[in-house]
Parts: sequence; C-alpha cells; structure tokens
Amino acid sequence: MIEHPDVQSESDGRKVTINRVGVKNIRYPIVVEDRKNKTQHTVAKIDLYVELDSKERGTHMSRFLEVLNRYHQENLVANLEVFLLEIKKELKAQAAYARFEFPYFIEKTAPVSRIKSLLSYECIFEAAYSDEYKLMIGVTVPVTTLCPCSKEISEKGAHNQRSYVTVEVLFKEFVWLEELIELVEGSASCEIYSLLKRADEKYVTEKAYNNPHFVEDVVRELTLKLRADSRITSFKVESLNQESIHDHDAYAEVNFNG
Amino acid sequence: MIEHPDVQSESDGRKVTINRVGVKNIRYPIVVEDRKNKTQHTVAKIDLYVELDSKERGTHMSRFLEVLNRYHQENLVANLEVFLLEIKKELKAQAAYARFEFPYFIEKTAPVSRIKSLLSYECIFEAAYSDEYKLMIGVTVPVTTLCPCSKEISEKGAHNQRSYVTVEVLFKEFVWLEELIELVEGSASCEIYSLLKRADEKYVTEKAYNNPHFVEDVVRELTLKLRADSRITSFKVESLNQESIHDHDAYAEVNFNG
Amino acid sequence: MIEHPDVQSESDGRKVTINRVGVKNIRYPIVVEDRKNKTQHTVAKIDLYVELDSKERGTHMSRFLEVLNRYHQENLVANLEVFLLEIKKELKAQAAYARFEFPYFIEKTAPVSRIKSLLSYECIFEAAYSDEYKLMIGVTVPVTTLCPCSKEISEKGAHNQRSYVTVEVLFKEFVWLEELIELVEGSASCEIYSLLKRADEKYVTEKAYNNPHFVEDVVRELTLKLRADSRITSFKVESLNQESIHDHDAYAEVNFNG
Amino acid sequence: MIEHPDVQSESDGRKVTINRVGVKNIRYPIVVEDRKNKTQHTVAKIDLYVELDSKERGTHMSRFLEVLNRYHQENLVANLEVFLLEIKKELKAQAAYARFEFPYFIEKTAPVSRIKSLLSYECIFEAAYSDEYKLMIGVTVPVTTLCPCSKEISEKGAHNQRSYVTVEVLFKEFVWLEELIELVEGSASCEIYSLLKRADEKYVTEKAYNNPHFVEDVVRELTLKLRADSRITSFKVESLNQESIHDHDAYAEVNFNG
Repeated sequence: MIEHPDVQSESDGRKVTINRVGVKNIRYPIVVEDRKNKTQHTVAKIDLYVELDSKERGTHMSRFLEVLNRYHQENLVANLEVFLLEIKKELKAQAAYARFEFPYFIEKTAPVSRIKSLLSYECIFEAAYSDEYKLMIGVTVPVTTLCPCSKEISEKGAHNQRSYVTVEVLFKEFVWLEELIELVEGSASCEIYSLLKRADEKYVTEKAYNNPHFVEDVVRELTLKLRADSRITSFKVESLNQESIHDHDAYAEVNFNG
Repeated sequence: MIEHPDVQSESDGRKVTINRVGVKNIRYPIVVEDRKNKTQHTVAKIDLYVELDSKERGTHMSRFLEVLNRYHQENLVANLEVFLLEIKKELKAQAAYARFEFPYFIEKTAPVSRIKSLLSYECIFEAAYSDEYKLMIGVTVPVTTLCPCSKEISEKGAHNQRSYVTVEVLFKEFVWLEELIELVEGSASCEIYSLLKRADEKYVTEKAYNNPHFVEDVVRELTLKLRADSRITSFKVESLNQESIHDHDAYAEVNFNG
Repeated sequence: MIEHPDVQSESDGRKVTINRVGVKNIRYPIVVEDRKNKTQHTVAKIDLYVELDSKERGTHMSRFLEVLNRYHQENLVANLEVFLLEIKKELKAQAAYARFEFPYFIEKTAPVSRIKSLLSYECIFEAAYSDEYKLMIGVTVPVTTLCPCSKEISEKGAHNQRSYVTVEVLFKEFVWLEELIELVEGSASCEIYSLLKRADEKYVTEKAYNNPHFVEDVVRELTLKLRADSRITSFKVESLNQESIHDHDAYAEVNFNG
Repeated sequence: MIEHPDVQSESDGRKVTINRVGVKNIRYPIVVEDRKNKTQHTVAKIDLYVELDSKERGTHMSRFLEVLNRYHQENLVANLEVFLLEIKKELKAQAAYARFEFPYFIEKTAPVSRIKSLLSYECIFEAAYSDEYKLMIGVTVPVTTLCPCSKEISEKGAHNQRSYVTVEVLFKEFVWLEELIELVEGSASCEIYSLLKRADEKYVTEKAYNNPHFVEDVVRELTLKLRADSRITSFKVESLNQESIHDHDAYAEVNFNG
C-alpha cells in the first residue's frame, strides 16, 4: 500500500495553542427532538472544532466529517454529548466544540379561526466539551411589537413591526425549545402566525394595539421570566425591531450570569 | 523581455458564443452625480462583462480592472457610456455590460421638527452597449405601509410595516434618482426618515393610519405615475412588505413595456 | 356570525393588472423526489404568486398558505402541477406562479478510499401555470476549477478555486436533478466532496492539475452537453469562480433558447 | 406649544438594567483616517448603544442619530472618543457603545508589472465608554492559502483558495489598519491583488506554491507577530479558508489576552 506523508501530524515548534480549529459552514440534514412529534427532519449549518495542542502542526479535518456521518440521522439533540466526546477522542484533543444552526417548525393554531399552520424558528445549539460538557441552546422568535410612545401621542393608530427576539440559555435541567418560544411569544405585543383569516387578523391587530411594547419592555419581561426559572443558570436576551418608521432597527440586550 | 504564453487568445473550436463573461462582485469607491450637491462619494459592488466570440478561448479579465481604475474617481453616472465603450474596445467585443449597486444618500427633513438627517437608498445602474447604448436605472426605497383590511376590521389600530419598493426604468430623456424616490415616497402610507422627534412620530403614525395601502395599491399608484411620465419608456415596479403579523413577506410586481 | 368587511374583494378603478402578487420568503419543510431513495426531507424558501386582474383591489394572501399546508408533506416535485392549478383556482386567477429554493443532498463516494459522505446542492424549481403548465428546474453545483493560464505560465503549481456552476433548464421530457449535477461535475477541473482521505486528496489535486478549465471552458462544455440532450428545450448556464488570487469573482453565462 | 407625553422617560419598576439598547444597522457615509492620503470617504453600517438604568423605562433613540449627524463628516477614527462621550452625556447613560463596519480601500502595486489597483478590506471599530474609553479595531484581509499536505502528497499542483483572515486588536498605543493588513498579507501563502497582468499571475502562482500554509500556520504566524508588538495588549486572529476541494470552509482561531 502506498504511504502518503501525514503533514498534519508533524510536530510544530512555534508553541502556539490554537483555541479552535476545524470545519465551518457544513450544510447537513439532521434529525432533532420534537416535544410533540418526537422527532423532526431539518437542515443545519454546522461548525465543528477542536483545540489544537501547541506541539501539533495540524488537525485532521476529515475526521470531523467521519463522526458527523455516523450521527446526523440519529436524534442529534439527545446525542450531542456523546457526539462531541467522540470528536474529542478521534481528534485526540483537550476540547471539542460544535455549533448547529437550523430552522425548527412548530404547528400553531390561529387565535380565532383555529386554523393550523407551521411557523419556522431559527435555532442554535452550541456545545463544548473540555473537562466537562456544556450546552447552550438558543432560538430566534419572530413577533409583533407596537410602540407605546407612538400609541400614546397619536390620535389613532400606532406604528408596529416585525421583531426578532433571541434567547440563549445555559441550564442545569433540560429546557425545551418550545418552552423558550412560549416565553418569548408571551413577552411581545402579539405573537406571529403563518396563516391568519380575517377574524384572526382583527384579533392580532387589536391585541397588539392593546399591548404596546418598547424593545426595552420585551427584554425586561423576558429577563424576569428567565430569572424565575430555576433550571436556567445564565442567559442572554436580545430583541431587534425592524422599525416601520425608520430604515434602521431598534435593539436591546440583557446578559445574565446567575 | 520574457514572453508568457497568452492562453486566453488561443482559438476555440467549440463554436459557442458566451453571452456574458467577465468580473463580478468587485467592491470599489465611486463618485456619482447628486442633484443637489453635484457629486457624492459612495462604495459600489460592480460587475463588468463582455460578449465573447465563439472563436476566442478566453477574455482578458485584467483589462476590465484597468478601465475601471481610469474612471472610478470620475463621475461615473455622467460617463457610463464612454466607460462602457472603452471596455468594448479594449476587450474587442461585440457587446459590453456593466452593473453598479451602491447606496445613495439624501438629506431629508423631518415633517414637523424640520430636523435634517440622511437616508440611504440602494441604487442600481445597469448599462449595455452592443449596437447602441442602453441604461437602466433603479432604486429601492424603504417606506411604511399600513394594511387597509386590518384598519377596516379592527376597532383600534392597524398592522403596518417597513416595505421596500423597487423601481427600475428605461428612459429616452434623463430621469434623476431623486425623482424616482419622490414618486415612491408619495405612493406609500408614509415615507421613512432616519431621525424623528416626538412631534414627527405623531405625524407619521397618523399619516400612515389615514393613508392605508395594500402592496397592490403601492405598485398600482406607481404604475399610473410612471406611465404618465413621457420620458420613461419601460419600467418594473416591485413592493416587498415585511408583514408585522407574519414571518413572510407580501409582494407585488408590475412590468410595463411601453 | 360576525361579518368582517372583505376589503380585498372591492373593485378597483385604476385599471392596472398586477403581473405577480402574493407571498414571499416562506420557510417550509418539504418532501422532494430522490432518484435513489425515492423521497428526501428538506427545507425550502417558497414564493407563491398569482396574476391579479385589473378590476380586483387585492388578492387573498391567506389562501396561498392554505393550499401549501395541504401539499408540503406530499412529494412536491411530483405534484407541482396540481398544486399550482389549485392555487390558480382558489385565487380565481388567470395565472399562478411558484418558486422553491432548497438544499438537496446526494451521497457521494470518495474517488480512492470509497468513503461515502453527503454533499448539498442548492436547487430551484420555478413553475408557472397560465394557459399551460411550465416548469424550470435549476441547480447550483460546487466544483473545483484550475486556471489554464496560471498552469501554462508557472513553473510549478496553478491557482485553483471553488466555483459555483448553475444550470437552469426547461424540458419536454423529465430530467433528474441528479443528471444535471453529473453533467456539471464532468465539466469542471474536478468535482468536490465533503469527506476526502489523504489518498483522495492526492487524486483530486492531480486530477484538477491535469484538467485545467477557464470559466469560459466550463460553460462551453456544459452548453455542448445540454444542447445534445433532446429532452432539454432551453437552458441557462452560469459559472462563478471564487478566484483565489483576487477578491472578486470570474463569471461566465450562456443562454440558449432552442 | 403642544406637549407630547414622553413615555420613554417614565420610571420603570421591573428593576432590570439593560446592558445595551439603541439603534442598529444604520447605513451612513463616513470619513476615516488614511495613513497615505490623510482621509478616505466610505460607507459604514453603524450600531450605537447605551446601558439603560433599571429605573428608566426607555432610551431616546433619536438622540443617537442627532449626535451621529454632527460627526459623520468629521474624521470619525480620530474623534471616536469624543463622539462616544457625547452619546453618553446626551443619553445620560453609565456606558455607551459604538460599532462601525466599513470597507477601506488601499492602493496596491502588482509584484512584477507594478500596475496599481485598489483592494477593499472590511474593517471594524468597536468602541466602549463606561469608566474609561476602550477601542477595538479589526480588519478582514483576503489572501491566498495553498495546502501543504496537498502539495506534499501530489506529483504536481496543490489545491489553494481564497481565505479571509480577521485580526482584532486592543492596543495601548495607536496601530494603523495598514499595519495589521501588512502583518496578515505576510502570513499567508501569497497576498491578493485586484489587477494582475500575466507576469504577475506567474509570480503569485509560484510564490503561493513555494509558500504553503495550513489554516493553522496562518493564525500561528500572526500570533507570534502580534505578541511581539508591544503596543498590542490583546487580540483575536481568525482564518477562514474557502477550500477549493470542499463546499465547506476550514477555520482556525487564536485568542490572546496579554
């Protein structure tokens, strides 16, 4: 058998540990846990890294893909810890990291007509395994926000807009994406649906008008709810409002380390 | 002097004319005409192409950049025809094409406080020179739209959102970007500003509420105005509404070839 | 039952037919036909439009979603014609349009090690139904291209890069996405894989070096192959080379209407 | 004069400090310092935030724009500290933050033909002012990298690609963007130019072939150089290689806190 020199395995004299090295922007079909339907098929953008010891010249990029090929059709949410441990071992690394971004779909029921439709939520799982395993889960939720100031000062109407609220949490006890989504949808002027009939449109318009929220109100309400959840140890909350009266966005962010 | 073989100039036996070949996604600082201030500095994304005769193997990519380097600090709007003619000659081509995308800034005055601020509009110039010179100019204008149905069926309030309206025109007599922008801003529920004080916010909220527009209304009003302008020979109008009650957009498009 | 006024159904006096109006940028999970595995789960970005008669004020946006909800779990490729016909009927329109963009995954076998891995291809289906049904299918294929000029003039090595080749076709007899992908992968310097071991890396490096292609060569080879396929009636071929020696791209395009 | 209620100034009982609240994604023309030409016009994407005290309900978004309007035509690099201090004062905040992203252009000279052309570099300035003023500057530099393993194992050729190397630094003594760019361009297989004639193309092809760099080599060489610069107190170095033989990227990152 022909021997191809293994340049990556050469020793390196520069004495620089590389914090993270690996493969980025892999698009891959995955299966994730679904609270209602057990599992769900989706497509992820995946980054996989290890820490590289100062003595080694290069990592072995193909091994990340070999491990991914073994796991992607499994339920990756449930198996992320063993997946990452396997990367750590195969790459002989002190630490391994994985980041998954994927749309997750939930069937929602319109408030009046009760018609069902799917809404998509962009999710993030960020896992790290050095001495111990850590998992951050996050989700971006589209909602409606209606401006309290605009309502107060105007005779009729109030400007409102689509906002994207992102919650990222570390927990000591499992939290469902669905739970985070519900917290966000209850902290805005109104939640969003893919399919609304006229009676629903009347409902969401009036609900938002009666429930005005500054970008600051959204992140504060969420902060109070997340702080009160004993499973969650630290979190970050962001809201980005696509202001309908400007061409820039309003933004607020709260970080909490419990 | 050393001779490097000119592989691109080899003859090609496959008998396939290439409609467009060249360089894409060049980022370059340019100077453009400004109705009020004479000229304006901005940064463009530029694509430059020629038609390639079936007998030639390759075009000479570096010549596009050589011509661009001679022109970018000139007023490119005023000189686009000679710029394109020079590309056509330098590349010995039957046809040459250029596309410029760039933000263009206009100082706007808030409706009540009269405070001034800059707003950015994404513009497109698309020029072609085969037998004769043709220029398409286009601009995307952010505006507010407020839903007539939501207003009609709801007791209070109405959902509204940021919309992006794009107008692209061919003309027989020069039309300013500023004129197209004014037409669009007069065909929505309300125009948008970067800087609004509270009295302005009251004004734009109430104006939008009193002036509801479906996505269909926006493109129809614009169509009537553009058709009535004898300088404009053909056009395309699009509106994309970032619905505040959905996570998808509403869209309408009218094409007119006079 | 409460009656909500149907503002969209009002008659319109402006006499402007809207070419396309509907919903854009819907993210939805879909099932598509797979030549090898029968079906494949993926996630699409979907646009749905109808033509709007000059006499009607607005279209009924919610109906697009109602039809989509009935079809997305079916095999949408096989059912696109009936799906579009249903939209046309439900919206009472003269013409209906649909555009789907989605990643499609194919298992590839590394050239030497025979290791298998998935590669993702961005696909487009664009369907129109006015008098008759028309379908355009397209796919973007990542490949390696190696510059013939750089190879010829340099003592050793040659610059090469990732290129994205897009083929869009209209046909009179069904063509698989897999067939288009194979045509593209055979018209570049070398095809691309997600997972390559060292023996594979040697193979693809040498294959690309022995098989240099200008951006012009890629689109011409593809043009000859597509013209020779009697099922295909018209097509567009594009190649975008992410030049490793520049920060802009090289680009070529051929359009063919048979 | 009519009084409009100031809802933002209401007191808030939720006792949640908001870490950052403000305006995001403003596009604005700015003037920046240029080592060779004194100043340079460019266009930035700007985010401006303050910390919001737990007792206040909302920030005053319009004031960010008012301060920006006073400064954008000044040399913002030189004046960022006073700019941020003014935001802090106008908004009566404990801390203020600004982030600018903008393309910066440098004239480069081709290595053999000596022809000049402009190359664009994406830059970031991130400034914070709480107790004291802190500035992070960063730049992303496109370069060529050629794979050492591919070269070693292959008879001829080696895969190479465009890479984007990002350096972000904190310093105690001023460092020019141009200095960071030079460090990066000397730490890759070869630097990149917009305009290369054939003799230049031979030069860069051969230089890259004789100078292979893994993604790990790029970040390590840069780490050694940045550590050796006594002006720089901490930094982050990233390289993203758009692998020509894969459709995903290779990535490495080093963080250093001196």
